[in-house]
Amino acid sequence: MSRKYVFNRTGGPDVLELVDVDVPQPATGEVRIRVKAIGLNRAEIMYRTGAYVIEPTYPAQLGYEAAGIVDAVGAGVSHLAPGDTVSVIPGFAFTDYGMYGELVNAPARVVVKHPDAIGFEQAAASWMMFVTAYGALIEYGSLAAGDTVLVRAASSSVGLAAIQIANMVGARPIAITRGTSKRDALLEAGASAVICTEEQDIVAEVARLTDGKGAKIAFDPAGGAEASKLIRSLHQDGIFFQYGALEHGDIPVPVMDLLGKHLTIRGYELFEITTDDEKLERAKEFVTAGLASGKLSAKIDRVFEFTEMAAAHAHLESNTQVGKVVVRV
Amino acid sequence: MSRKYVFNRTGGPDVLELVDVDVPQPATGEVRIRVKAIGLNRAEIMYRTGAYVIEPTYPAQLGYEAAGIVDAVGAGVSHLAPGDTVSVIPGFAFTDYGMYGELVNAPARVVVKHPDAIGFEQAAASWMMFVTAYGALIEYGSLAAGDTVLVRAASSSVGLAAIQIANMVGARPIAITRGTSKRDALLEAGASAVICTEEQDIVAEVARLTDGKGAKIAFDPAGGAEASKLIRSLHQDGIFFQYGALEHGDIPVPVMDLLGKHLTIRGYELFEITTDDEKLERAKEFVTAGLASGKLSAKIDRVFEFTEMAAAHAHLESNTQVGKVVVRV
Repeated sequence: MSRKYVFNRTGGPDVLELVDVDVPQPATGEVRIRVKAIGLNRAEIMYRTGAYVIEPTYPAQLGYEAAGIVDAVGAGVSHLAPGDTVSVIPGFAFTDYGMYGELVNAPARVVVKHPDAIGFEQAAASWMMFVTAYGALIEYGSLAAGDTVLVRAASSSVGLAAIQIANMVGARPIAITRGTSKRDALLEAGASAVICTEEQDIVAEVARLTDGKGAKIAFDPAGGAEASKLIRSLHQDGIFFQYGALEHGDIPVPVMDLLGKHLTIRGYELFEITTDDEKLERAKEFVTAGLASGKLSAKIDRVFEFTEMAAAHAHLESNTQVGKVVVRV
Repeated sequence: MSRKYVFNRTGGPDVLELVDVDVPQPATGEVRIRVKAIGLNRAEIMYRTGAYVIEPTYPAQLGYEAAGIVDAVGAGVSHLAPGDTVSVIPGFAFTDYGMYGELVNAPARVVVKHPDAIGFEQAAASWMMFVTAYGALIEYGSLAAGDTVLVRAASSSVGLAAIQIANMVGARPIAITRGTSKRDALLEAGASAVICTEEQDIVAEVARLTDGKGAKIAFDPAGGAEASKLIRSLHQDGIFFQYGALEHGDIPVPVMDLLGKHLTIRGYELFEITTDDEKLERAKEFVTAGLASGKLSAKIDRVFEFTEMAAAHAHLESNTQVGKVVVRV
């Protein structure tokens, strides 16, 4: 017997129930993991409140990110063995797997051995943010040394991941944030410059910071009217990645920039990487190398105990955290 | 001595002057061509009137498309020999080369042997339209059998080229046009269906015609607010190509479509293909095969004599033509 979280109706953090379950032997292509840490994601809040793209079927399990020790492997799994320290990369639906448990099965293809030195809490906090940023910046955007990338909502976990990845490849991350309060923290987090949109004009500032050249990539979870300023700040063959819809209004795309500079505007999701075997392997290699070298390092806001899952959800919902919320098992 | 057209001030068709010139031996990487036919392009009208991206330096030569017979080859040119029947693909600046002449030099990399059977007038009319449509639909869009492509401004020469290319690869071209007057002509030109935007809703019609599936590609020279309807009509991983700016307003991109369907919005220009050696070679092969098989065939509106260049320009500017305006030399 082991315990896992489920919910039987949508609602506040208190709908989460800790229940006893028998976790079966891993099936073909699965591994069973003794979970040591869980990384929390906004998707889980949305799922719990009924606002996610998937409709829950009850009892509903959840959880995208975990790290732990392999307990058993199913048939057809050759790259993992009991005793391996591993992390789980989001690449499945909650209707199939949920990581909020003491002992969980997971599809082996999204389970990756992580460097022992980084520890379970770091590992559980790393994969969503780094693979999300990696996919746009490196897999699709081919960001390289000397390139400039604009990172909007730069203080979010994915924003901070994008800053680290840019620095890892020798590119120049310019953080875009609203007010000035986060400026110092962003510079400390690795941003080469910070543009505060309440006080500065994005287009003029990017031009000034790049000697008129512009940026190769913009990476934006918000969209809306301000996104067009990021688009206008791109140089020839630049790419604007939209990876979230914090704003719901249309993005007004300036046609002369689009056409004259052969720009690409691209809707992007993590699952494009995690559902494709080849892309996923490249992502694992890149992020593992970054974690091992210390160039990629997830910022953890706070660690809760396993029995405090409701409080951990409430904390994530408060939007006061800086970095990742992790639950220790 | 031979004759070519130049202009010494911007203005109407009458600024074009036919002058005597000594055409030098082709330099390294050039071929000299005895021109038999010239294809006219809107870019030349814009250049002549001072509205083009390049500022003329006088005397200003012009002309992107021609077909003729190789007269001499410069050093380093191995794929062409005197006597070859060839066409010139737009892939240079008027400040360097101009095809409005009886004898012209051209950069060998954009000179292609065309099938003798198609004749010089067809050949001179083919390359701008087919390579433009090929680049978006095939090189970048990977349009293939069973796919659907939406072609806006479908009765333009590039629009008609897109319809033919879609049919050539077994894809389904849906023509988007304003009124009903061109419906029959577009069906005859190979459109599998025609949507008349004055009477029909693009999104609903595309859904109906594709059993709710949507289109893989939209190919649009206009932009503006209506472009967002084409964007909304795309299916998962669809691509919207903007290859002109007939409208100057922003394109309002619906963010939930962009994100939920991982759409790509792409500014695209012919020169992306013609300035890249590998892409250009693939384009030559594709279009040559299409011309040879008869699956690609440029519609010619009217043929003028060489001395009638001003009248040919005036005719193109009248916007009454259907198909390409060609000048016989």
